[in-house]
Amino acid sequence: MSWEKNVRKVVPYVPGEQPKMNKIIKLNTNENPYPPAPGVQEAMKALTKTFGTLRLYPSPTCDMLIDALSEYYGIDKDKIFVGVGSDDVLDTAFLTFFDFKDKQSGNLLFPDITYSFYDVWASLYRIPYETVPVNDDLTINYRDFCKGNAGGIVIANPNAPTGIELPVKGAIEEIIKSNPDCVVIVDEAYADFGDETALSLIDRYDNLLVVRTYSKSRSMAGMRIGMAFGNPKLIKYMNDVKFSVNSYTMNIPALCYGVASLHDEEYFRTTVGKIVATRERSKEKFRKLGFSVTDSKTNFLFVSHPLKPATEIFAALRERGIIVRHFNNKRIDNYLRITIGTDAEMDELFAALEEIL
Amino acid sequence: MSWEKNVRKVVPYVPGEQPKMNKIIKLNTNENPYPPAPGVQEAMKALTKTFGTLRLYPSPTCDMLIDALSEYYGIDKDKIFVGVGSDDVLDTAFLTFFDFKDKQSGNLLFPDITYSFYDVWASLYRIPYETVPVNDDLTINYRDFCKGNAGGIVIANPNAPTGIELPVKGAIEEIIKSNPDCVVIVDEAYADFGDETALSLIDRYDNLLVVRTYSKSRSMAGMRIGMAFGNPKLIKYMNDVKFSVNSYTMNIPALCYGVASLHDEEYFRTTVGKIVATRERSKEKFRKLGFSVTDSKTNFLFVSHPLKPATEIFAALRERGIIVRHFNNKRIDNYLRITIGTDAEMDELFAALEEIL
Repeated sequence: MSWEKNVRKVVPYVPGEQPKMNKIIKLNTNENPYPPAPGVQEAMKALTKTFGTLRLYPSPTCDMLIDALSEYYGIDKDKIFVGVGSDDVLDTAFLTFFDFKDKQSGNLLFPDITYSFYDVWASLYRIPYETVPVNDDLTINYRDFCKGNAGGIVIANPNAPTGIELPVKGAIEEIIKSNPDCVVIVDEAYADFGDETALSLIDRYDNLLVVRTYSKSRSMAGMRIGMAFGNPKLIKYMNDVKFSVNSYTMNIPALCYGVASLHDEEYFRTTVGKIVATRERSKEKFRKLGFSVTDSKTNFLFVSHPLKPATEIFAALRERGIIVRHFNNKRIDNYLRITIGTDAEMDELFAALEEIL
Repeated sequence: MSWEKNVRKVVPYVPGEQPKMNKIIKLNTNENPYPPAPGVQEAMKALTKTFGTLRLYPSPTCDMLIDALSEYYGIDKDKIFVGVGSDDVLDTAFLTFFDFKDKQSGNLLFPDITYSFYDVWASLYRIPYETVPVNDDLTINYRDFCKGNAGGIVIANPNAPTGIELPVKGAIEEIIKSNPDCVVIVDEAYADFGDETALSLIDRYDNLLVVRTYSKSRSMAGMRIGMAFGNPKLIKYMNDVKFSVNSYTMNIPALCYGVASLHDEEYFRTTVGKIVATRERSKEKFRKLGFSVTDSKTNFLFVSHPLKPATEIFAALRERGIIVRHFNNKRIDNYLRITIGTDAEMDELFAALEEIL
């Protein structure tokens, strides 16, 4: 099989387990415990009636979704890009903006503890990269990204899997400002649960791309919708690459239901508010049980117990049908990442933890 | 904006026009004139009832769809890959199999007249490629691909936009057999409308990948579903790359409706049969009007008139609300590609053509 010599060999990203056990409490992939907005169900009924339209290609420019996002965020249409989840959007951004042509370009920089897909994309596209160690308390030292030597920067804010948020003013903005010669991607997958966003900076800095997703705050992980915001030139370059990969990425249901979700702001605020309230209550509970807990601004918590190894807690929870996430990375291998579920789910989790500890 | 120096600059594929005129006859993007199988509508109703599940990530391994395709085609699950339309599948295959590491590898080969995305992907991923001229009658000379000097081969069968089919025995199989050291992709987007398929060869040749789509014969262009069949090693390599790009490509509706479509074989046979009958009738009509017509085995015809330039016919049809496809490629710029619509649509087309000529 000598065709194998020309195969692009990669170490792929491993997504969180999708266990096939019955009756589990699934707190391992940061899904939202509440259903999508009721308007999404109405959009599903409407599309069912006109199902014959599925024979046609969707709009390659994703017009209806771009229009709706433009209205929702008050951002011009030519500053918006959409894709098949924020992973697709980030993948396109990596492929587009980090095509380092010579050794003169600095490396792509991102924290050593962050979303574990960044180094996968960098490896896939042969992008030279360098990880910047976070502090011992897992916070990012923004100054490490302000040295002006980067070829590109990716920062998740809030960061994953720590959940810790950097202020935009005085930190994220400094990173963007210090690196005018490279694209800075701010991955705001969890920003709806936090206090900060760099969205308002896209008009001020032409090198800033802000990425968002429907998978967490909009309860639509199953629909695969993500988006990016940036100046029209950045977005145009991404669209050129998108049209070189797959012209029709977003299927008709994704476009229709993506629009419907934006039309129910009250439901959105209510469910995000409930998750934030459960998160804050859960932080206290974890602390009472002796855990150290980062100050997460997301829909998950990152916790560690001084007496009981994370792998043991992980296994004991799993035996009880509660699935959480553990990362085999030496700096954080005594931590567990636990998605915020409903209050009832969290109560079951805490009852199990009391037993285990 | 010196970040622009690291931008991957590309000449993107230009998809067929999606005109926003009212009441048009759309024969330009090879969509199916009939709706998807009625079972798809039932699946939509069912998913609407359980819409809360959209909060969860879809299966990253696309189990339900792979299972259903395995049963439908009688092909083992580990020989099947699925993606967001066959464009996504082909893109993944290009990225996976044509990572030429040295000058010793031959070039990627494909015909000069073929699906216009192949050179776009090759350019995007910096894959050295070479186009092989088709004969003057637009047929492919399969021997040109049997010289054993290729680093990779892509053949659409039937070919686009000519619609002409090569026999598998004695042509496609010879190409595969002559190139054991490189991957041969047979793009069978239109094969359901023809007489030939290389599917049965995947167990005999480990270098063969056969690609299919739901967009044409299954009337589901709007759902973005494509698949590939090959030996488990090929498929594993593609999955490794897929999991390095986007773990969750297929959304929940795509998985559910993709399965439903496979369950109504009679509807499938009937609608494909109707299109083939309309195609054959249309070939005659075109010939009677003085057109030269290739022997298309697809859901489109490729026609040229000896007296009236294609661009003039194109414009005159468009004025009458009939949209067809014209390619600005000097070897075929006097041809039009015309999708097979319903009999009624084709009658309107022929009435218009009689007026125009």
